[in-house]
Amino acid sequence: MSKRILVVGSTALDSVETSSGRVDDALGGSAFFFSSAASLLAPVGLVGVVGGDFPRDEIHFLTERGVDMEGLETVPGGLTFRWGGRYHENMNERTTLFTHLNVFQDFNPYIPPSQRDVPVLFLANIQPRLQLHVLEQLTAPELVIMDTMNLWIELSRDELLQVIRTGILIVNDEESRLLTGVSGPLQGARLLQRMGPHTVIVKKGEHGALMLGAEGRLFSVPAWPLDRVVDPTGAGDTFAGGFVGSLARDGAWGWPELCRAMAWGSAMASFCVEDFSVNRLRTMDLGQARERFDGFRALTTIPA
Amino acid sequence: MSKRILVVGSTALDSVETSSGRVDDALGGSAFFFSSAASLLAPVGLVGVVGGDFPRDEIHFLTERGVDMEGLETVPGGLTFRWGGRYHENMNERTTLFTHLNVFQDFNPYIPPSQRDVPVLFLANIQPRLQLHVLEQLTAPELVIMDTMNLWIELSRDELLQVIRTGILIVNDEESRLLTGVSGPLQGARLLQRMGPHTVIVKKGEHGALMLGAEGRLFSVPAWPLDRVVDPTGAGDTFAGGFVGSLARDGAWGWPELCRAMAWGSAMASFCVEDFSVNRLRTMDLGQARERFDGFRALTTIPA
Repeated sequence: MSKRILVVGSTALDSVETSSGRVDDALGGSAFFFSSAASLLAPVGLVGVVGGDFPRDEIHFLTERGVDMEGLETVPGGLTFRWGGRYHENMNERTTLFTHLNVFQDFNPYIPPSQRDVPVLFLANIQPRLQLHVLEQLTAPELVIMDTMNLWIELSRDELLQVIRTGILIVNDEESRLLTGVSGPLQGARLLQRMGPHTVIVKKGEHGALMLGAEGRLFSVPAWPLDRVVDPTGAGDTFAGGFVGSLARDGAWGWPELCRAMAWGSAMASFCVEDFSVNRLRTMDLGQARERFDGFRALTTIPA
Repeated sequence: MSKRILVVGSTALDSVETSSGRVDDALGGSAFFFSSAASLLAPVGLVGVVGGDFPRDEIHFLTERGVDMEGLETVPGGLTFRWGGRYHENMNERTTLFTHLNVFQDFNPYIPPSQRDVPVLFLANIQPRLQLHVLEQLTAPELVIMDTMNLWIELSRDELLQVIRTGILIVNDEESRLLTGVSGPLQGARLLQRMGPHTVIVKKGEHGALMLGAEGRLFSVPAWPLDRVVDPTGAGDTFAGGFVGSLARDGAWGWPELCRAMAWGSAMASFCVEDFSVNRLRTMDLGQARERFDGFRALTTIPA
């Protein structure tokens, strides 16, 4: 039985340049990438903030997929968070060209009363103090999954360590290294697990992701082999969208569900990078996602 | 029904320094690493050359596993090939301290008559001209698997392209990039396949390996997650040993066998890096290897 998801995160307009081309003021931010994927699998409510300049038409497809936008605050006269970046040829490194926080600077997430009893919470990458503030407003979340970024590891480590205790932690390999001081994904995951989360996922970009669960259980999922990556922006949040969406759809998070969710995460992320912004996630449907999920079985199952 | 394997490659003494320690004049070279793994799975014959200084006791464990050493030539008064290297902290980069080819410089592989009808041939990394010379001596190999290295890609490209046509090509991501000019493993594998081999495997070190087969079929295997890598030397040859050993044991190389062989390759490679030289491969047995192979199923199988 499908459970509802609440996502709290950034909602932005991205200007991105890669070897494949560029976009300006395209839909971006962790909450939009997450919702684009998760909404194909389970009901999603979104909490974020945009300015009066935000092109509402751009998220019409999310509303059509049933994403509850009651929690998307609009600051009239304010400007939406804007980020600009340029990827290097190899797509693994990028240069941030600008970060205009705008209305996101004063973001103070308010959870609408109708969503405070949500069972599944995804705390996307926002300031740890705000993540704690979100947790305080929920009545009884059954599962909390969280993400973070290097900025908060450096600036707000203590508050971050308070949030980390809750549930499932998703980080990338660089964040794992910054948090633990070790570079191996397994070593990192083990140290992170000691900080409190029962399950730790270390994303490794084009190399897939590793999950460490209770009793030292391990699961590995590759990234979908692609001939061409157009834009890696948002892949991590989209992975989280597929992962959390799958758990919410199953309404359970035992080890089999967690492993399946890893494959859904990687499947969704692979669509994300095939185009700029949420363009591919916007046009795809559940049938296509399921086909790629099945493709993962063929790609990874060791024949008997 | 198990088929016999012939491996032709380097047989050396390595001096290696990593953050875990160092060894001097320890068993090394592609043929020894390969045989250490493959001999746990199928009968192996080895062709290589050593000097009069070679410590024959060191390969007693291979003879005990039934490796046929008739083709291991000894040059009396000559010195064995020696390589020295130091790994950087992250284990991904290394500095070659010395390469003394010694008797390997004039290596001219002679296949003993008793082994010319061998069905499975592994051409480890030696000069492409010599690889061709080995092929000429065999009567009717059913399956040829080959490896190479950046040196030959740069120095002997034309001859290399002649050998590549034969069967299965195993390269690492750097070699793939040098051969094709593209850095993505999938793109690289597709271009390599057009050069002739029906199956291409791109090894990605700590990130596992990707296989591209007939009709564009893909299979991905991760590296076994390890808390600590002691010495990565020989991991690629050991992967090949597990891979080819598994195919020879099955006596078949359809897609299911190829996928299983990938997991055996990765399983064997994970033992290799747990200690210096062939030390771990020397002490392990098939039961332990099988246990890790089963571990791969748990690590990668997406639950129904």
